[in-house]
Amino acid sequence: MDRPLLVLVLGVAEQEEERIRAAAPGADVVFAPSAADVADRLPDADVVAGKLDAAQLAAARRLRWVHSWAAGVDSALFPEMVASPVVLTCSKGNGAVPLAEHAMMLMLMLDRHAPRWLRAQESRTWDRFRHGELAGTTCGIVGMGGAGTALARRAAAFDMRVLGLRRRPELQVPDVERMYGPDEVEAFAAEADFVVVTAALTPQSRGLLGVDAFRAMKPTARYVCVSRGGIADDEALLTALREGWIAGAGLDAHAVEPLPADSPFWSLPNVIVTPHNGATTAQTARRGVDVFVDNLTRFVAGEPLRNVVDKTAGY
Amino acid sequence: MDRPLLVLVLGVAEQEEERIRAAAPGADVVFAPSAADVADRLPDADVVAGKLDAAQLAAARRLRWVHSWAAGVDSALFPEMVASPVVLTCSKGNGAVPLAEHAMMLMLMLDRHAPRWLRAQESRTWDRFRHGELAGTTCGIVGMGGAGTALARRAAAFDMRVLGLRRRPELQVPDVERMYGPDEVEAFAAEADFVVVTAALTPQSRGLLGVDAFRAMKPTARYVCVSRGGIADDEALLTALREGWIAGAGLDAHAVEPLPADSPFWSLPNVIVTPHNGATTAQTARRGVDVFVDNLTRFVAGEPLRNVVDKTAGY
Repeated sequence: MDRPLLVLVLGVAEQEEERIRAAAPGADVVFAPSAADVADRLPDADVVAGKLDAAQLAAARRLRWVHSWAAGVDSALFPEMVASPVVLTCSKGNGAVPLAEHAMMLMLMLDRHAPRWLRAQESRTWDRFRHGELAGTTCGIVGMGGAGTALARRAAAFDMRVLGLRRRPELQVPDVERMYGPDEVEAFAAEADFVVVTAALTPQSRGLLGVDAFRAMKPTARYVCVSRGGIADDEALLTALREGWIAGAGLDAHAVEPLPADSPFWSLPNVIVTPHNGATTAQTARRGVDVFVDNLTRFVAGEPLRNVVDKTAGY
Repeated sequence: MDRPLLVLVLGVAEQEEERIRAAAPGADVVFAPSAADVADRLPDADVVAGKLDAAQLAAARRLRWVHSWAAGVDSALFPEMVASPVVLTCSKGNGAVPLAEHAMMLMLMLDRHAPRWLRAQESRTWDRFRHGELAGTTCGIVGMGGAGTALARRAAAFDMRVLGLRRRPELQVPDVERMYGPDEVEAFAAEADFVVVTAALTPQSRGLLGVDAFRAMKPTARYVCVSRGGIADDEALLTALREGWIAGAGLDAHAVEPLPADSPFWSLPNVIVTPHNGATTAQTARRGVDVFVDNLTRFVAGEPLRNVVDKTAGY
């Protein structure tokens, strides 16, 4: 009955193995690329760090805790996981800094029409034109987790006016001049020169930005999304871009990924598409392991875990 | 002998005319696209705002003051202007904010290999890859005028470590951890992950970054220039880029402009070329007029002008 703890760790870089083992000295820690590679160990696993599907979850009959390497756990919250007593923790905060950087890059590239410069460079053309300044414009941030907070700080240093929208608008954040609630999305959208989505995809945030929000935006305003597709309604966004309700978009997260080759977003003028790549840095992976190692130490010591997902709220 | 003051204002937008006239109520203020368009008025002009060449300067025998719409006056400081008793003022500070924004955009685009995303978008390809974060890297800023100071603030908000290099290193700037002098350029270059030139082109700064500086840089470091070409030695920069002494460059200012079609910079991998376009905003033009209007009021009142160029120092 003195069976050691079985911990399956999926998809981490080899150089992370030592510090993960060190966090659970008596445990049997097994590293593998994916759950499919250790299917025979699932029935005995106490802990899994990485992705599980519904069948794998069902097979893991002793499982008590799953850690997700992602910050947003929408895809991990399939009905069986929501219904299960297994504790789910996430790596939220791991991508906050690179997502804020990506959002700032997309805002700058949209404001300065950077793709035009790159096209001119290809044809060795000196194509000078007038563009904007972020300073003095208004950045409206949807979602005030790690990425939203990090973005607020950067936008404020660019002398932008910063507005926020979050589920609980009573929670203030430094550098945010005014916080709106989800029921004020149109007033929020009407004020912003850039609407930037950094929120998790949850039952509450899905479709938050629809026809009404895009119609409320200024025709000169731009839409940027660095967290999850589906928070904006794609049909409404497409119409807004095609009909000139807004001036452009920078899209890193998409409702369907990879973005299908026949998606109209690829070729719309004034749209910059990046492949859900904003937080793909060595530091993001390392910070995810930081969270897991800390939690593994807590788990072994019988202490409460951090970054525990509220499966109903969705984050 | 009660001739009114003759002020020639060259190349400003029509909507600026009223406030310029209002600054010198008794004066004869003449607006024109360029000095060539008002050649007959040059001999009587007391003040010119805009570009003059040596012949036009010689023709303007009563001239007391020239205002330049540019922040950097290297091209206005031809030998006859340096030798002349005419006071030269400049619009320094007018482009500080947009140049800092441009430098941040170029750093982000280089760090994230943004041109690769735009090429992938053109072929509707989902091309995901690992890239860097600016946070935790070191930004070395050459020149601590308006643009350098504005950039230091933005880079610090991105959690970059900020170093500066200026002619008078004893003058501190907020957010700059350490200030280097021109004789320490190699030590400065060796520390930086990004060397960003925001300085004026002067006899002192010309060729400041040569073979030794580029050799001192890290092979992973990037070079960015948003003020003037010629501060880096182009041959040394080319060799550095071709031989892998450094990892890339973002070039808005060039030694010869427009950049000739046969310049190798256009097609070097890891080089982003923009056409001296970083500060080309409506606000930059307006801020230049702000300086001139303030100075015109002072001139009429017999008060000292601001932004007077030290013709020997070159800025």
